[in-house]
Amino acid sequence: MEIIGFVAAILTTAAFLPQVYKTWKTKDVSGLSLPMLAIFFVGVLGWLIYGVLKESPSMIFANSITIISSFLLLFFKIKYQKN
Amino acid sequence: MEIIGFVAAILTTAAFLPQVYKTWKTKDVSGLSLPMLAIFFVGVLGWLIYGVLKESPSMIFANSITIISSFLLLFFKIKYQKN
Repeated sequence: MEIIGFVAAILTTAAFLPQVYKTWKTKDVSGLSLPMLAIFFVGVLGWLIYGVLKESPSMIFANSITIISSFLLLFFKIKYQKN
Repeated sequence: MEIIGFVAAILTTAAFLPQVYKTWKTKDVSGLSLPMLAIFFVGVLGWLIYGVLKESPSMIFANSITIISSFLLLFFKIKYQKN
């Protein structure tokens, strides 16, 4: 069972890396939604707590990394946003 | 425990709705990464299977909705992408 979780963890975690890289290089944040990024960040924190309570290694692994990625996207959005 | 999972589920699920809405209205997909969207879609499918195996109502609920959102973003990206 845990192998499926780990594959899912690697995929959804890895999915954020091209986005983080692209946003970092292009500074193009026009297509990113600030409410999305903020809500997502808090949600991922919730999943991390849930994963700890469920004692799920996949969830703890995935959400620890995703929370860093989502923090970076949120940071870029606020930093590069044109008013 | 499940309440934390459901709060996390609602947040990460809800996070995609402004993004889906924004992308649908603006057709601005320049800041969205195609590899991210494709990998994410497959990853969410993995989490859905893992949630079923773990018998986690929060994970099944969240990933059922997120898989639809991520499919829509992937569809918009392919449809509106300028070459």
